[in-house]
Amino acid sequence: MPCRTVLNGNYFKMGIIKEYSLYGYIEHGIQYKDRKERKENMAMKKKPVTGMKDILPKEMEIRDYVIREIKETYKTFGFSGVETPCVEHIDNLFSKQGGENEKLIFKILKRGEKLKLDQAKEEMDLVDGGLRYDLTLPLSRYYANHANDLPSPFKALQMGNVWRADRPQRGRFRQFMQCDIDILGEPTILAEIELITATTTLLGRIGFEKFTIRLNNRKMLKAMAAYSGFEEQDYDSVFITLDKMDKIGLDGVATELAEQGYSKENVDKYLALFEKTDSGIEGVRFLKDTLGDYLETEVAQDLETIMTSIDATKSADFKIVFDPTLVRGMSYYTGPIFEIAMDEFGGSVGGGGRYDEMIGKFTGQNTPACGFSIGFERIVMLLLEKDYQVPASGEKTAYLVEKNMPEDKMLAILQKANEQRRNGTQINIAIMKKNKKFQKEQMEKEGYTVFEEFYVDRMQ
Amino acid sequence: MPCRTVLNGNYFKMGIIKEYSLYGYIEHGIQYKDRKERKENMAMKKKPVTGMKDILPKEMEIRDYVIREIKETYKTFGFSGVETPCVEHIDNLFSKQGGENEKLIFKILKRGEKLKLDQAKEEMDLVDGGLRYDLTLPLSRYYANHANDLPSPFKALQMGNVWRADRPQRGRFRQFMQCDIDILGEPTILAEIELITATTTLLGRIGFEKFTIRLNNRKMLKAMAAYSGFEEQDYDSVFITLDKMDKIGLDGVATELAEQGYSKENVDKYLALFEKTDSGIEGVRFLKDTLGDYLETEVAQDLETIMTSIDATKSADFKIVFDPTLVRGMSYYTGPIFEIAMDEFGGSVGGGGRYDEMIGKFTGQNTPACGFSIGFERIVMLLLEKDYQVPASGEKTAYLVEKNMPEDKMLAILQKANEQRRNGTQINIAIMKKNKKFQKEQMEKEGYTVFEEFYVDRMQ
Repeated sequence: MPCRTVLNGNYFKMGIIKEYSLYGYIEHGIQYKDRKERKENMAMKKKPVTGMKDILPKEMEIRDYVIREIKETYKTFGFSGVETPCVEHIDNLFSKQGGENEKLIFKILKRGEKLKLDQAKEEMDLVDGGLRYDLTLPLSRYYANHANDLPSPFKALQMGNVWRADRPQRGRFRQFMQCDIDILGEPTILAEIELITATTTLLGRIGFEKFTIRLNNRKMLKAMAAYSGFEEQDYDSVFITLDKMDKIGLDGVATELAEQGYSKENVDKYLALFEKTDSGIEGVRFLKDTLGDYLETEVAQDLETIMTSIDATKSADFKIVFDPTLVRGMSYYTGPIFEIAMDEFGGSVGGGGRYDEMIGKFTGQNTPACGFSIGFERIVMLLLEKDYQVPASGEKTAYLVEKNMPEDKMLAILQKANEQRRNGTQINIAIMKKNKKFQKEQMEKEGYTVFEEFYVDRMQ
Repeated sequence: MPCRTVLNGNYFKMGIIKEYSLYGYIEHGIQYKDRKERKENMAMKKKPVTGMKDILPKEMEIRDYVIREIKETYKTFGFSGVETPCVEHIDNLFSKQGGENEKLIFKILKRGEKLKLDQAKEEMDLVDGGLRYDLTLPLSRYYANHANDLPSPFKALQMGNVWRADRPQRGRFRQFMQCDIDILGEPTILAEIELITATTTLLGRIGFEKFTIRLNNRKMLKAMAAYSGFEEQDYDSVFITLDKMDKIGLDGVATELAEQGYSKENVDKYLALFEKTDSGIEGVRFLKDTLGDYLETEVAQDLETIMTSIDATKSADFKIVFDPTLVRGMSYYTGPIFEIAMDEFGGSVGGGGRYDEMIGKFTGQNTPACGFSIGFERIVMLLLEKDYQVPASGEKTAYLVEKNMPEDKMLAILQKANEQRRNGTQINIAIMKKNKKFQKEQMEKEGYTVFEEFYVDRMQ
């Protein structure tokens, strides 16, 4: 450990490094034993790891506020908090449910004797865990593990970080917070209705309006593809193209499907469906009539009931639309799927759906499950961008205390501060600096509006 | 992906596995493509990874409550929230500051082309990051990186998980939450006083009493060892033995030091100091007089002022004592150190101290720093054990709705629920089960006290 030494102030202010035979290296008043120690210390990195970020107080204030609103709102809907470890079994993460996500997993090295470096042939021989890349897989494991101790249906609220080794880019980070609500063990669309109502109520409470909930059903997607003559094995690739509709339009999708070798007949039939389908309940009814036996009867009925119920009971300013082009990437969805679209953001700020077959992968017994995840980071970003002011929580007061305040007088100041704190006032006690004006300006930036100054000779 | 099939209910209830040439494997109503897919799914692990735990709703309620109290209390002391990534540069984690902790780091495998498995000679060639093992090192990096955007002094509150690959044992987990407050840039003991006052105020608010703050100073430790004739290079090993005082007593320490080969004269002189030192301000004064020039004058004065100030301004029921046997493991401490002792727990539930030389390792320029960490997990454990009831937050109401409720009647129920929710009542809507009595009992366990039942033929 370097220890503090001041040998020659001026000398070191110039940032000059000099070797002393007795003391080793000294730089900026810090003494290092030898070249090696100095080099080691210079290797300390100030920036966070690539793609992850430090969060400054201003953003933390907004995050804390959103977290508080989330907990309070979802509690009124009967959701209970749960938490799972950030580290998950590598086998669970690589269980073919995450698709593309598997490439993005941060893997954790085995430890101790389990790590056999000389025998390892591939990556997977070296690792036994990984950082979770979503909250849905860990929640399914959690429910499989604890179902006996939980009510049925179980309404879970989980907030926590997830990690994905994506290529770093503006506004996208490799560690980010997710916030999921899930209803496990409820087979009816009461689950979908409650999830959408809870989420939209929350968004309304934190000041969002005029957003849109897009609704579809994986079974509707499949029925439309089947009706148009596509083979089941091609569905996923067809849906990947369909998913680009909002970017490349109907013609773009037609071109891309043709390029992939699908017959003109199938493609034309498929796209005609989208052209004719309205985004309201009329659209659902049209497809119900058109698709006939390709569609299970209750799929259309359920979509209609969800839309009617949400419209009739909503407490925020938004609309819910039927959108047959909504795909949602994850292959684990089995029924209704939904997404939040917000003009201000130009993309999705959350989504979810029914995944009735994931818990069965852990238990061997399928359990109905449905979840809604909000894009916590995007919501925080939108609030930061519009300079959102967190509802005030009392005045912030700064005590500036002159240097070398005698002990008995300092005691009186501390006592006064603690009394005010007990009443909920925020008191920051700081030693007065030479440049008091600058000090105050700095504190004003942090939201301090009241300043009390204490001088040695003006205290009783 | 397996898909749901019900071929023969009774058959599968018996848990029999049967191979169908057409459908592949079917077990408990879940169909697998082939043996391989079934095996893969069976590999899904239900338990969390070794040493980490899932958190059930009852514990989450207490955790959320403690977190809320922490944020509210520390805010009144002027602390601002900060967050650092859970992943830290491996070089920073291995910077010789953590000592023993380095062995306990979960290391993260390099990704893509950076991972050169065939060229790797040792572990460190394979990894570029690790999970943070405390919050102090990341905070120091954070402050070094952002000092220009932060006020000086800066009062930081950081809560978050840390990871240590300790041998798993009862009540100790490999992922656990830490909660630190730190004051950076404040050289005077105002920092120590504010940290101790804030922490004890918090403990009082969440119902703890009659605990003890043990106080010492690394410089006092060193002065006592120097005065007794120990060599500087032996201090650390002497302190490791001294740290066992509460377990093995004065005689035990004497024996162990003798076994390590220290001279009887030094050991006797050393232990006599502890025998004669009182745990109050008298003890500090005695050592000040006895140690003379071995001790910097302000060390004793500062200890005395901290004790007097805390005693005179405290708002919780605890005592602060001087304890010359308090060592605190981390080698980075440079001044006052402190720890919370609680009889109910039989050990420390938090501690901290001054570490004026850590930030300089990142910036080349030392910055005064002092922190206090509370043992969040231990506090939650103590509250769980004494069946602590989180202050009530309104009645929890359950709506039990008969199956197949027609859409229009269901709408009325949803509307009623959402109105009550807007007023802050917790409403859980559930479909009524055959065994309604059991369903209600389950919900009572979750804290539901009011039940409203809705029947198809009794709705208007």
